Amino acid sequence: MAFNRKDLLGIRELSVEEITTILDTAESFKAINQRRIKKVPTLRGKTVINFFFESSTRTRTSFEIAAKRLSADSINISASTSSVTKGETLADTARNLQAMAPDAIVIRHPSPGVPHQLARLIDAAIINGGDGAHEHPTQALLDAFTIREQKSRISGLRVAIIGDIRHSRVARSNTHLLTKLGAHVRIAGPRPLIPADYETIVEDASDSLIVCDRIEEAIEGADVVMMLRIQRERMSEAFFPSLKEYSIQYGLTLKRLELAAKDAIVMHPGPMNRGVEISSDVADSSRSLILEQVHNGVAVRMAILFLLIGAEGE
Amino acid sequence: MAFNRKDLLGIRELSVEEITTILDTAESFKAINQRRIKKVPTLRGKTVINFFFESSTRTRTSFEIAAKRLSADSINISASTSSVTKGETLADTARNLQAMAPDAIVIRHPSPGVPHQLARLIDAAIINGGDGAHEHPTQALLDAFTIREQKSRISGLRVAIIGDIRHSRVARSNTHLLTKLGAHVRIAGPRPLIPADYETIVEDASDSLIVCDRIEEAIEGADVVMMLRIQRERMSEAFFPSLKEYSIQYGLTLKRLELAAKDAIVMHPGPMNRGVEISSDVADSSRSLILEQVHNGVAVRMAILFLLIGAEGE
Amino acid sequence: MAFNRKDLLGIRELSVEEITTILDTAESFKAINQRRIKKVPTLRGKTVINFFFESSTRTRTSFEIAAKRLSADSINISASTSSVTKGETLADTARNLQAMAPDAIVIRHPSPGVPHQLARLIDAAIINGGDGAHEHPTQALLDAFTIREQKSRISGLRVAIIGDIRHSRVARSNTHLLTKLGAHVRIAGPRPLIPADYETIVEDASDSLIVCDRIEEAIEGADVVMMLRIQRERMSEAFFPSLKEYSIQYGLTLKRLELAAKDAIVMHPGPMNRGVEISSDVADSSRSLILEQVHNGVAVRMAILFLLIGAEGE
Repeated sequence: MAFNRKDLLGIRELSVEEITTILDTAESFKAINQRRIKKVPTLRGKTVINFFFESSTRTRTSFEIAAKRLSADSINISASTSSVTKGETLADTARNLQAMAPDAIVIRHPSPGVPHQLARLIDAAIINGGDGAHEHPTQALLDAFTIREQKSRISGLRVAIIGDIRHSRVARSNTHLLTKLGAHVRIAGPRPLIPADYETIVEDASDSLIVCDRIEEAIEGADVVMMLRIQRERMSEAFFPSLKEYSIQYGLTLKRLELAAKDAIVMHPGPMNRGVEISSDVADSSRSLILEQVHNGVAVRMAILFLLIGAEGE
Repeated sequence: MAFNRKDLLGIRELSVEEITTILDTAESFKAINQRRIKKVPTLRGKTVINFFFESSTRTRTSFEIAAKRLSADSINISASTSSVTKGETLADTARNLQAMAPDAIVIRHPSPGVPHQLARLIDAAIINGGDGAHEHPTQALLDAFTIREQKSRISGLRVAIIGDIRHSRVARSNTHLLTKLGAHVRIAGPRPLIPADYETIVEDASDSLIVCDRIEEAIEGADVVMMLRIQRERMSEAFFPSLKEYSIQYGLTLKRLELAAKDAIVMHPGPMNRGVEISSDVADSSRSLILEQVHNGVAVRMAILFLLIGAEGE
Repeated sequence: MAFNRKDLLGIRELSVEEITTILDTAESFKAINQRRIKKVPTLRGKTVINFFFESSTRTRTSFEIAAKRLSADSINISASTSSVTKGETLADTARNLQAMAPDAIVIRHPSPGVPHQLARLIDAAIINGGDGAHEHPTQALLDAFTIREQKSRISGLRVAIIGDIRHSRVARSNTHLLTKLGAHVRIAGPRPLIPADYETIVEDASDSLIVCDRIEEAIEGADVVMMLRIQRERMSEAFFPSLKEYSIQYGLTLKRLELAAKDAIVMHPGPMNRGVEISSDVADSSRSLILEQVHNGVAVRMAILFLLIGAEGE
């Protein structure tokens, strides 16, 4: 297997082979999650710390379930209970955790780069559970897993990513992953919410990454339509006039979805704002893979934990 | 065994046979809690989520211990850390949890009917850990277990339930259970805290459910005296003049307890307000089974988890 | 083995033999924490509750990891979620926890003596995880373990303890332990932060415990320099003029450390205020055992759990 990393920090630095290894490994773990006895002894005696500086049901729970189904011990630390509130530096807190000999630390933090900083400091495997607007690699991997499972490939697919690109670590990680695997990514969203140089984040954007002016342009002919969550707290910054206005211009409706390929699938990283970025009839349609994404998330995180801390001779 | 339900939502819908099955099953689990090694592999590979929208030491801890002693994996999610705070609907949050393939979800929520709503939406077994003033079925079951263990029967017993009936899910679930099993229930409390139509909650209240005017009338000759917690936050609504006044009129003292049967037992669902609804000499007397209730709660919850998600061919 | 206690409440009441037993036992557990599979079945079927009334990353996580590596089930309860907020007395909360048949309860509480009070009330082993400014016995034991491992002995060593002695349970527990084991302890810190009768806390302080006027006096010739954390919240009480002033007068710098023995080691219970009580070049130097203390903490807590609830015929 082509996976020899200490950490999973972002998609940007992964090779196509590494991504494929993660997705292939996740396939076998998905089967475990569908058994009556959803547990294997693979990571018995390993300690996984979930260190979350932002609250999260889905990601934290998904990692906790993934660890436990592999028989690892899972420890939760949230920012409010951590020593960071006592004036300790984050680096010292991390070194202290390291001293307790955990095998992996999943970190979610509002500041971009924090996982990379910790990864240099400590021996445990660091898994980026979302760092500011930078990367959210496990989300992109579970998205890719879901697409590959449905479409049998990623290469050559047309994928629309719609919404607040600027603040979305999901968009960034997915853009890296999908273009690496040969998909054609089209981006759309309110202009103030798309960085001027967004195309430069991938190496050769000429035919793999296009920023569109209108949502219709991005969706047209798409095999996959990926909607991003509108974070209501951004409203105050006046990036767009109102939720209603946003919904009219950028919300995914059944009508807009008709522009996509006949067998197009719809994705959303959650939590959804129904009636804002996605209409309920789309979210609940047979085209929607939103819950399948969550289901696959557990298997993908099991695969990542296994590849980082479970392999022989690690 | 007569138990073929997906969920445990309330006592109201349970048959006498189902209740008896739960109590009988709990007996064998009680023995496990008294061993040196308090653990069996019964639910290995099962995932139980405790999803609590109200804080609780006793109920959450009891369920967590019950799950772990059966070797299930236990995951805690509290309202403050959940996506509900991010604008996601409760239904979507539940569907997302379901997507991670848990076997059971224990839910406590301030709104009546939420567990029933979730049960219709998702495949996991839903256990009602208390829904507003509606039901708290596991509390009634552990109370019944405790009574049956002490009195060798429930049928024919006289049980007084005293206090704030209106806001008490414990009173409601116990009224259902005890009358179903043939006990004679007498209710007393401040008039504004007893719903006018309380007798109509059970099918044939003629001799099984009587609302009394005075606490003495309810306690007289009782085999079981069950005191309810006064929720101090209700004080502001002026249902009764003061805690002191409440204590004088409705508090259980040794003197009042003399009105009950010679071998009457005293129960309280906790947490107690000593000196308000119950005097310390009663709470700490040999008549009090308050801590035995808590002890039995773990066994009853183990039984419920086992019956819902542990039986063969489920 | 010389250990027949129900609880670990403080160092004050431990004999030299008991302390030695704990340290010797911890040695074998330390080896487990350095294996690939860091888990033994020793406490399978045991329940350990972490009941924390003050937030803490390091101590709670250390106990949780210790319990899990011994295969015990670990349950976390924090003050904010406990029934204490519902008007229940701490004694009743403790009796309720006891009713669920835990084997051990680790308690951290801002009031001195709370662990002792609980220990009298309930059967479970009580472990003091820090009670106000009174004792923090597991910290002192992990400090002693670390010193003994480095220096091969404790008897006869000169140990300087510097800082806010008045509010430090770490100072108090370490003073008891180190003087019991024959070390010579020298105390220094701002006068208002050293209790007038501090020498009287140990039996024969004549040559084993000396309060110094200046930090230099305490450090001179010391084999171990133990810095205490300055709790910034004390600043408002004006025990010393400013953090900067404190740092100048009492902070440990490389220059001050030159006064100590050539092979002196530096310790700190964490979380550190870099640049206040300790300079970064000292904290990060090869003399510093700060992270080794944390590492040893897991092994020491495993030893304590094992000795209290894991021994045969307990």
